[in-house]
Amino acid sequence: MRVVPVSLGERSYKILVGGGLLDRLGRECARLGPGRRCAVITDSNVGPLHGARAMESLRAAGFDPVLVTIPAGERSKRWQVVARCHDELAKARLERRSFVVALGGGVVGDLAGFVAATYLRGVAFVQVPTTLLAQVDSSVGGKVGINLKAGKNLVGAFHQPRLVLCDLDVLGTLPAREFQSGIAEVIKYGVIADAAMFRRLERGMPRLLARDAAELAWVVARSCAVKAWVVGQDETESGLRAILNFGHTVGHALEAISAYGKWLHGEAISVGQVVASQLSVATQGMPQADADRVRALLQRAGLPVETRLANAQATRLAAAMQLDKKVVGGEVRFVLARRIGEVTWGQAVPIDRVLELMLPSRADAGAGATGLE
Amino acid sequence: MRVVPVSLGERSYKILVGGGLLDRLGRECARLGPGRRCAVITDSNVGPLHGARAMESLRAAGFDPVLVTIPAGERSKRWQVVARCHDELAKARLERRSFVVALGGGVVGDLAGFVAATYLRGVAFVQVPTTLLAQVDSSVGGKVGINLKAGKNLVGAFHQPRLVLCDLDVLGTLPAREFQSGIAEVIKYGVIADAAMFRRLERGMPRLLARDAAELAWVVARSCAVKAWVVGQDETESGLRAILNFGHTVGHALEAISAYGKWLHGEAISVGQVVASQLSVATQGMPQADADRVRALLQRAGLPVETRLANAQATRLAAAMQLDKKVVGGEVRFVLARRIGEVTWGQAVPIDRVLELMLPSRADAGAGATGLE
Repeated sequence: MRVVPVSLGERSYKILVGGGLLDRLGRECARLGPGRRCAVITDSNVGPLHGARAMESLRAAGFDPVLVTIPAGERSKRWQVVARCHDELAKARLERRSFVVALGGGVVGDLAGFVAATYLRGVAFVQVPTTLLAQVDSSVGGKVGINLKAGKNLVGAFHQPRLVLCDLDVLGTLPAREFQSGIAEVIKYGVIADAAMFRRLERGMPRLLARDAAELAWVVARSCAVKAWVVGQDETESGLRAILNFGHTVGHALEAISAYGKWLHGEAISVGQVVASQLSVATQGMPQADADRVRALLQRAGLPVETRLANAQATRLAAAMQLDKKVVGGEVRFVLARRIGEVTWGQAVPIDRVLELMLPSRADAGAGATGLE
Repeated sequence: MRVVPVSLGERSYKILVGGGLLDRLGRECARLGPGRRCAVITDSNVGPLHGARAMESLRAAGFDPVLVTIPAGERSKRWQVVARCHDELAKARLERRSFVVALGGGVVGDLAGFVAATYLRGVAFVQVPTTLLAQVDSSVGGKVGINLKAGKNLVGAFHQPRLVLCDLDVLGTLPAREFQSGIAEVIKYGVIADAAMFRRLERGMPRLLARDAAELAWVVARSCAVKAWVVGQDETESGLRAILNFGHTVGHALEAISAYGKWLHGEAISVGQVVASQLSVATQGMPQADADRVRALLQRAGLPVETRLANAQATRLAAAMQLDKKVVGGEVRFVLARRIGEVTWGQAVPIDRVLELMLPSRADAGAGATGLE
């Protein structure tokens, strides 16, 4: 078992990475010294697979857990579902010393974390992420929340988990598309902060795609370590933490305009990373060769690297980007790369420039116009 | 104008108390250096009275405010209304540097504060309390939230305002019953921490009820100072802050079983303070004379000091108390007084003992049974 510490003063916690950890859930929770009552929030996909084992482990450690199952899918990240969970917690008489276990992917973690952040003004919570994406990204760092019609994650809180438990065995049942979606965030860590990690991913991609146990353990732990380092520097995103959003400005907007249906998160940020790399070449002096390597590695992971937008979609994409939380004074701020392993944040980019890269026809028209001048 | 500082490290802020402050709202907000966009959240009672002046003051200071009006009343403290406010904020394109002004009583402050705490994971907010109750209590200290069917304030956050602006002029239009409700919290500050304040209230009650300007300024500022001192010691209620809940365990339960309809908050905690005083005499050695003074002062303020419960109501009251956030390990914890000006918290009291004080028939039966032993 690997242990990755997250250093946040009195809110510090550990990420445990290894096989068979789900059966240790109860024992690990008991070390935190919480009250006896707790809730396991899971979804209709994960509950049937792993819910019973989680409940059993908690009961064996002396806890009195209640299971709350929400419908699977991004659409559960809304107020109605939060309210239903709150009602269930109240019904089960959870108190201030009680805790919430999030058992599932990013949707469950974000939602259950927000439920925990707001129930009785905040109770403890434990993340048991069951997708690669959640293990390497959303379960670490304390960002929790829900969506509005106007955009993703527009409502939420910073609420750090007390423990993150990444059981690698549960990744075995993950559909290939979801597994690949997680790799998009793994590649991102290489781009933003760790050129050596990026090179190892270039060599080890076949082993990773085959879900080789040793490779997986290394990838999850290394990804968590990069994220933990960034979050430890800047817990509430006043500066550096923004680098975690490389590829996300376009990615979130793509998810928003497709009503969170067509794109998996990792797929959307894969396209977003390719767009961000192109902007980086044009404005930050990123070597074209580095941008090509980013694109190639995403492609080898089976991820989409481009999308063609109709004009109406482009208009909606532009509007969605303007609602991004990173908008300051009406300008869209991008995280851009100087080279693989080094990024800069807060770069103002005109929205038209972004659209040019995603609307080949408009780019052609622009080139033609320039030629006539 | 009186200025009461609230010392909370980097979350410190000032409470301004005086006449004509509403017209200074824009100028005072400008000092905080926020973004241009903001929202004023108010309700259908307060909006028509003071909304235009607040908007005008903000516009004059260069802000671009949007007005969001919610239905007046405790029933607005629910997630549906929170969600509507979030949607309005997104529609008006509020950003991270934007801020929310809560213009109204406790319901508006609690709700708007929770909206601000959760929109984009937290934006700044400014309290402009328009009732005595909100000025002396709910606007100070950062507790924000909404109700569940299961109980009051079961969902929320700690989110400190950046500024509290208590305009005494707006209290002129307050109905007598609401004004008196606020006095219940004022009296509480005397009981829990300030015997000198309690004595002055005993002398000055007629002037206070007449809303004498000088008396009012003193009472609001002194109440805020007591609350600020307590909150400064213990921001997130890990200990001392609990003393602010003197009278509230029974008070909240009374409000809950009447579906927040019959009782104003101050009326419910007035009864709660009388019950807590009786328990204090019985278990903490509070002099009976002190308990009598508490009861007499509440009564002189025009507040109810007792209620007769039917048996079915008592059962519901007991259930509501068990859901109180102060419940630890299934035991109800009370704040009790040793004498006027000195309290102790975390006192476990059997629920039956509380009910005895509110169900004369059961108390009689108990006395009879004792006599037979």
